[in-house]
Amino acid sequence: MSYNTFGRALRFTTWGESHGPALGAVVDGCPPGLALSEADIQPFMDARRPGQSKYTTQRQEPDAVRILSGVFEGRTTGTPISLMIENVDQRSKDYSEVAKAYRPGHADYAYDAKYGFRDYRGGGRSSARETAARVAAGAVARLVIPEVTITAYISQIGGDEIDRAAIDFAKIGNNPFFCPDPAATVRWEKLVDEARLAGSSLGAVVECVANGVPAGWGAPIYAKLDADLAGGMMGINAVKGVEIGDGFLAATLTGEQNADPMRSGESGPEFEANHAGGIAGGISTGQPVVCRVAFKPTSSILTAVDTIDRDGENTQIRTKGRHDPCVGIRGTPVVEAMMALVLADHKLLHRAQCG
Amino acid sequence: MSYNTFGRALRFTTWGESHGPALGAVVDGCPPGLALSEADIQPFMDARRPGQSKYTTQRQEPDAVRILSGVFEGRTTGTPISLMIENVDQRSKDYSEVAKAYRPGHADYAYDAKYGFRDYRGGGRSSARETAARVAAGAVARLVIPEVTITAYISQIGGDEIDRAAIDFAKIGNNPFFCPDPAATVRWEKLVDEARLAGSSLGAVVECVANGVPAGWGAPIYAKLDADLAGGMMGINAVKGVEIGDGFLAATLTGEQNADPMRSGESGPEFEANHAGGIAGGISTGQPVVCRVAFKPTSSILTAVDTIDRDGENTQIRTKGRHDPCVGIRGTPVVEAMMALVLADHKLLHRAQCG
Amino acid sequence: MSYNTFGRALRFTTWGESHGPALGAVVDGCPPGLALSEADIQPFMDARRPGQSKYTTQRQEPDAVRILSGVFEGRTTGTPISLMIENVDQRSKDYSEVAKAYRPGHADYAYDAKYGFRDYRGGGRSSARETAARVAAGAVARLVIPEVTITAYISQIGGDEIDRAAIDFAKIGNNPFFCPDPAATVRWEKLVDEARLAGSSLGAVVECVANGVPAGWGAPIYAKLDADLAGGMMGINAVKGVEIGDGFLAATLTGEQNADPMRSGESGPEFEANHAGGIAGGISTGQPVVCRVAFKPTSSILTAVDTIDRDGENTQIRTKGRHDPCVGIRGTPVVEAMMALVLADHKLLHRAQCG
Amino acid sequence: MSYNTFGRALRFTTWGESHGPALGAVVDGCPPGLALSEADIQPFMDARRPGQSKYTTQRQEPDAVRILSGVFEGRTTGTPISLMIENVDQRSKDYSEVAKAYRPGHADYAYDAKYGFRDYRGGGRSSARETAARVAAGAVARLVIPEVTITAYISQIGGDEIDRAAIDFAKIGNNPFFCPDPAATVRWEKLVDEARLAGSSLGAVVECVANGVPAGWGAPIYAKLDADLAGGMMGINAVKGVEIGDGFLAATLTGEQNADPMRSGESGPEFEANHAGGIAGGISTGQPVVCRVAFKPTSSILTAVDTIDRDGENTQIRTKGRHDPCVGIRGTPVVEAMMALVLADHKLLHRAQCG
Repeated sequence: MSYNTFGRALRFTTWGESHGPALGAVVDGCPPGLALSEADIQPFMDARRPGQSKYTTQRQEPDAVRILSGVFEGRTTGTPISLMIENVDQRSKDYSEVAKAYRPGHADYAYDAKYGFRDYRGGGRSSARETAARVAAGAVARLVIPEVTITAYISQIGGDEIDRAAIDFAKIGNNPFFCPDPAATVRWEKLVDEARLAGSSLGAVVECVANGVPAGWGAPIYAKLDADLAGGMMGINAVKGVEIGDGFLAATLTGEQNADPMRSGESGPEFEANHAGGIAGGISTGQPVVCRVAFKPTSSILTAVDTIDRDGENTQIRTKGRHDPCVGIRGTPVVEAMMALVLADHKLLHRAQCG
Repeated sequence: MSYNTFGRALRFTTWGESHGPALGAVVDGCPPGLALSEADIQPFMDARRPGQSKYTTQRQEPDAVRILSGVFEGRTTGTPISLMIENVDQRSKDYSEVAKAYRPGHADYAYDAKYGFRDYRGGGRSSARETAARVAAGAVARLVIPEVTITAYISQIGGDEIDRAAIDFAKIGNNPFFCPDPAATVRWEKLVDEARLAGSSLGAVVECVANGVPAGWGAPIYAKLDADLAGGMMGINAVKGVEIGDGFLAATLTGEQNADPMRSGESGPEFEANHAGGIAGGISTGQPVVCRVAFKPTSSILTAVDTIDRDGENTQIRTKGRHDPCVGIRGTPVVEAMMALVLADHKLLHRAQCG
Repeated sequence: MSYNTFGRALRFTTWGESHGPALGAVVDGCPPGLALSEADIQPFMDARRPGQSKYTTQRQEPDAVRILSGVFEGRTTGTPISLMIENVDQRSKDYSEVAKAYRPGHADYAYDAKYGFRDYRGGGRSSARETAARVAAGAVARLVIPEVTITAYISQIGGDEIDRAAIDFAKIGNNPFFCPDPAATVRWEKLVDEARLAGSSLGAVVECVANGVPAGWGAPIYAKLDADLAGGMMGINAVKGVEIGDGFLAATLTGEQNADPMRSGESGPEFEANHAGGIAGGISTGQPVVCRVAFKPTSSILTAVDTIDRDGENTQIRTKGRHDPCVGIRGTPVVEAMMALVLADHKLLHRAQCG
Repeated sequence: MSYNTFGRALRFTTWGESHGPALGAVVDGCPPGLALSEADIQPFMDARRPGQSKYTTQRQEPDAVRILSGVFEGRTTGTPISLMIENVDQRSKDYSEVAKAYRPGHADYAYDAKYGFRDYRGGGRSSARETAARVAAGAVARLVIPEVTITAYISQIGGDEIDRAAIDFAKIGNNPFFCPDPAATVRWEKLVDEARLAGSSLGAVVECVANGVPAGWGAPIYAKLDADLAGGMMGINAVKGVEIGDGFLAATLTGEQNADPMRSGESGPEFEANHAGGIAGGISTGQPVVCRVAFKPTSSILTAVDTIDRDGENTQIRTKGRHDPCVGIRGTPVVEAMMALVLADHKLLHRAQCG
């Protein structure tokens, strides 16, 4: 069984390969009457699309989204919204090497083991290009939750972290790293450029905060808000870890240190801290929903790595194509999209049961 | 919408509250013909059940499982397996305080915000007692994947980690901490006992390794094996973080450091490292599947914490009941169970599509 | 893959065999705060339970329902509602014949072909006894749709139909046939008793009308209200046909004859006819939702029928147990329950998307 | 909540409106390695597409399918197969009347009641044009079940039935009615042409037989093979009734008349009759799977019918567009497609659980 649909009440199904004619998403369950045009989606596509700085892959894709259904006279109709993005820059190249040998760390071997063969052009379905469809779907999800503001940023590239005291969200859009700390931006320019020139790659951590989520979203026990976020984020290409609130740090604390005291506030409870990351028992508490996502360095590097070929013979492979030196950068808009998709889904799920 | 069912091909639904008459799980989709009796399940229940050492809650529950359906003449029939565990030791106590005020860090406030009221006795549905049903279901899942061996252990309590060089899996069952490092066991006895006596609590990290998983399990894009594991683990009570393979450490590495070179081996590919934790592109690679799970310290502590009551008035609350000083300990068998449930589900999913 | 869960927003999972210790249902997604006790469920159980007249099987089952979870202080909590019914009268008998040979028309051969073996005691999971769990779940569903009144009745036993001009819904509860036509009741007493004495069986048609369903429920394209009703009804034991509105009669009409003209009314549109049975495009129209369900005669008859045994050898079998001469009778409360379950599910689904 | 996905293991999601730029289906879960090209799909599209005889709507649509993903080097890869069909002949016309008033019997009023407004051009999403996407998906499903042969035909138009003794399946493709009885074909030419010229419409019954289905497919209790067929068929536009095997006729029979005696045969059991339509207990028996589907006459007729407008005022409406005088005709390939989709889904479901 394959499974290319995400969500329960607001569901989206994606399709498409890196080097096929197009890719897309079908968004099902969107409430009717919401204003939607391609112009509402494109800015999010632009934030993710490649070729915008020297710090990302040089593949040139306009990632222009077409809405093929589900919108009439500028408003959603409540029927499936089909979004299509044509692939434009599938550069003609020689795939004979990657067709034959497995790139370690990539999905090549696993796909062959599962399906018996694979579309080896640019990774086929396993390419991070699929995330373009999620970002398009995420733009629709945002319409469902106008009360929520979502902000993702990179807090760490390689071993270099931002200074949390220096965080300025207004800076995130002003640099190629979605970085909220101007000093870190300067350091990262050098760091990522060195990796790029060396044909190497770097890991990164993306943090995402959703403000405005009311208390009560989340469906225990097996569609907890944090569990759905963890599943959604871990499913993004190259992600290896997810934390909610204090995450692994909480494992080192005592109950007293980790307490989230509450006080009566003007418009509901106020919390002195938010160790929990806005979720308790799988349900939102009204505090900001906070998650952190670890991206590994892409396995596409210029250094030759030991591997085997389809016949099981030893060989080596180097990845010569156009690749991201730090996939976490372009992963940042994807993290935002997944946050929007999970929250919108849970808003509708909550409404189903609790009116 | 509530959602108390987990899995796609092998699905289980749990029900029950901490202080109700019973709790249970209905396991659906189990292949027919597997030998199953209550004796196959009970050892896993015993590993999780409370009151076995002074390091866990003193609630006394035999957690005896009854099989009510789905087994005939000692074998599974392919129909739903209903498992029931009676609650025995719901000690009569005064719940008036917890009925009125919210325990910070617990699900009390979130449940009230969502549902308008809540079963406040022992946390009701949000109690970790629910995980007994998962462990019972997990014992059935293990029958589906006899080729797989699953081992979970605690690698860290509070800030105190095991010595990885000293890991001896044979030791895990010989101490109350599921600890594979005898020296750490000695330290933790003191550490946890101090927390217990102080009415405090400690976080922990549980690691889980599944050996014997063949290459090819996992359903990209939205039922990736790692995404399902992350969702499953994050949904366990008190869990705040999940890593696959190197997890957050991978974010600090370069592509060269994180490479997983492959060599031709006698019985398939051999990998020199397993940074990926046995999963690439959401599909198992044939290497051990490795995940790490962070448990926060339980919020049930003797120290009074600021909170509000149902009327929004400021107050304080102390948790006086029988609680686990380190919930990660009893979480260890639950992590194993979730690993078994996810893997068994994916074995069947893989078989559906790929024969 | 087994599949013992029905519904999308209001979901229920049933478990249990005819001769096991118990059977039950777990109802998930029920809105919180609804008043519910065992006494709300029992009357529906009593309408379905066996042994109440000589026209149904003489197995004596009190079908007493226990609520094991999901209700606190008399109200639903929004968590799963576990309902259990103990089997009491699993009469000790010799099953060696049915264990060995297949009863034609029953599920015996199909279960063996699918699962390799079967629980042959009373049909195991394939027994109509499973419908007790649906009726219990249906009683919960009714709480979700207080605006709707559901009435099912038998319109035909064998070839003998009611006189539609004589329908009096007040009479349905006053006879053992759920018959709204007193003259038909008299005829059916003789008809069914003759079949009973002859060890034969009779088919029947059950009609079900839901009044008070507002316009707008139904989720096109693949969860249309009529499609979900058809699937739900066809899944009841012994059902072979389902019609919505005019059903097969509509196939014989012209567009003019089948038209459903609308006129402006005081409280919304009024319809001159209801050929459509209250559903257009898969969505309720505000008219009564009408469906008809065909039950075959049970295959349990005293006449010997040719069959084969598990070794593939020719033999004959007669069914000597306690059986219903007309399963449609006790199917009537099951039809009502399925109508309630489908409508309640769609009320919540509609609310999720359309607020 | 909207729901535009059908199936469990083999799932397809459709999108698109009658007068939008395109419509399509995403087929997920298809096994890898099956030979598939657009030429494999097109013949099924051609059987359903409009404008092929004077007995169907004169809208001219080539219904050319494009495969946008999921196929590589002529074989399915196991990833989602995206199928797109461009709308070509959305004739420019004046929709002001249908925008304002509700066509009785159509989904117009129900969509407005549900969603608050609607795409009124050609019925939008509720148009039978959506079934083109199902037929495309059905062509993929057929590849999954090469052991099965599916044949649908019309057995009745209006009140005029075929002579069952004269059935010749070889004739089905030789006439515009999918009619297996040459004499009926001659009568129907006159019957349908008269309806067409009068601006009237006729109902029809479609029968569908699947040969080669092995015993054992079907997932009791809530994904029974017959229940899934009933739901799938009832969801086709204009369908009002579904029967399996003898259907409503079975309600008039005795247990003796309805018996399905079995005898030992060379290659498994042989059945003397097939009253059950190849399904017992929701599981296939190895006999032909038989269902009958009732199509109402389309509500699009030239005669003015009373209705109301969006403001609730009384008015009348006549349908002047290009319509099918008997929608059952073009429904026949859709019935075949749904049969293929349900059977393929159940083949994979069975494999998941039973290997």
